Amino acid sequence: MTAHKVAQLDSPKPARMVREASPLDDTAGAGALKMGELSGLLGYALKRAQLKVFEDFLRTVSSLQLTPAQFSVLLLMENNPGRNQTEIANTLGILRPNFVAMLDGLESRELCVRVRSAHDRRSHNLMLTDKGRTTLARAKKLITTKHEGRLNELLGPANRDALLQMLSMLAEEF
Amino acid sequence: MTAHKVAQLDSPKPARMVREASPLDDTAGAGALKMGELSGLLGYALKRAQLKVFEDFLRTVSSLQLTPAQFSVLLLMENNPGRNQTEIANTLGILRPNFVAMLDGLESRELCVRVRSAHDRRSHNLMLTDKGRTTLARAKKLITTKHEGRLNELLGPANRDALLQMLSMLAEEF
Repeated sequence: MTAHKVAQLDSPKPARMVREASPLDDTAGAGALKMGELSGLLGYALKRAQLKVFEDFLRTVSSLQLTPAQFSVLLLMENNPGRNQTEIANTLGILRPNFVAMLDGLESRELCVRVRSAHDRRSHNLMLTDKGRTTLARAKKLITTKHEGRLNELLGPANRDALLQMLSMLAEEF
Repeated sequence: MTAHKVAQLDSPKPARMVREASPLDDTAGAGALKMGELSGLLGYALKRAQLKVFEDFLRTVSSLQLTPAQFSVLLLMENNPGRNQTEIANTLGILRPNFVAMLDGLESRELCVRVRSAHDRRSHNLMLTDKGRTTLARAKKLITTKHEGRLNELLGPANRDALLQMLSMLAEEF
């Protein structure tokens, strides 16, 4: 298993408390590390797979500068016009401070607007702008044809469907 | 699909630019949001499943106060005694600033020590303490019997194995 993010450990920092090692401490030698029980843990495998898939997602839509979370938010706005901020954040499981920061970013790029609700003046509804709609349409096309296309190719359509079904079961029933 | 983290949106904050909505904006009404293309995206399903599984992991070892990442680091230390900080961080794909902070925490809890390498004085090897070894043994037992046990129960052993295999394929080949 390769590291998906290479840590930069070139500049040494003094540890708070170090003791001298005997030369024997270094005899473990080079080569891949033993993963032990990690390789059989579903949570670990989920996290590694998710990071890999998100990296490919980011590369795929790099021209549009959208993260997976931003894409999800724009998609929910398109599918649920006029629903409020709380509903969209809750549905995606995004915490308020993160969601507010994300909306600030999307709004400053003119991809969406927050509209004060006429029924509840403390609440804001979310709407895509025309630019948001066009950007989302481009992103969807790239994701479907490139990103999901590559996943389909690697797994095969039957395995891909089985995987999606098991993941949804975990998300909903675990 | 239920939200796994409920955003707290009780205290209203003024948006930077708001316009008045017409009453029509609120007619979308209540009920679950339409997920649109999201429900077919593998990356979204991976993220939701991973969050659910990590939540259960945290609950399972809450008495030991270990995150999945901390558990992985302790496990690699046990399986690879005397290997250095860079190797462990790279293998797990943890970036240097996060890894240094994590080691500070683990060391202050006396679960591990950083030992200056005799061969390369800029490098630190990582070692479990006796307390670290005991804590890890307890965590492994809880994870195997409770957490992974529940996953096995939900998915069935054959599906669980197929899922693990597909996730490993994504992590290694995608």
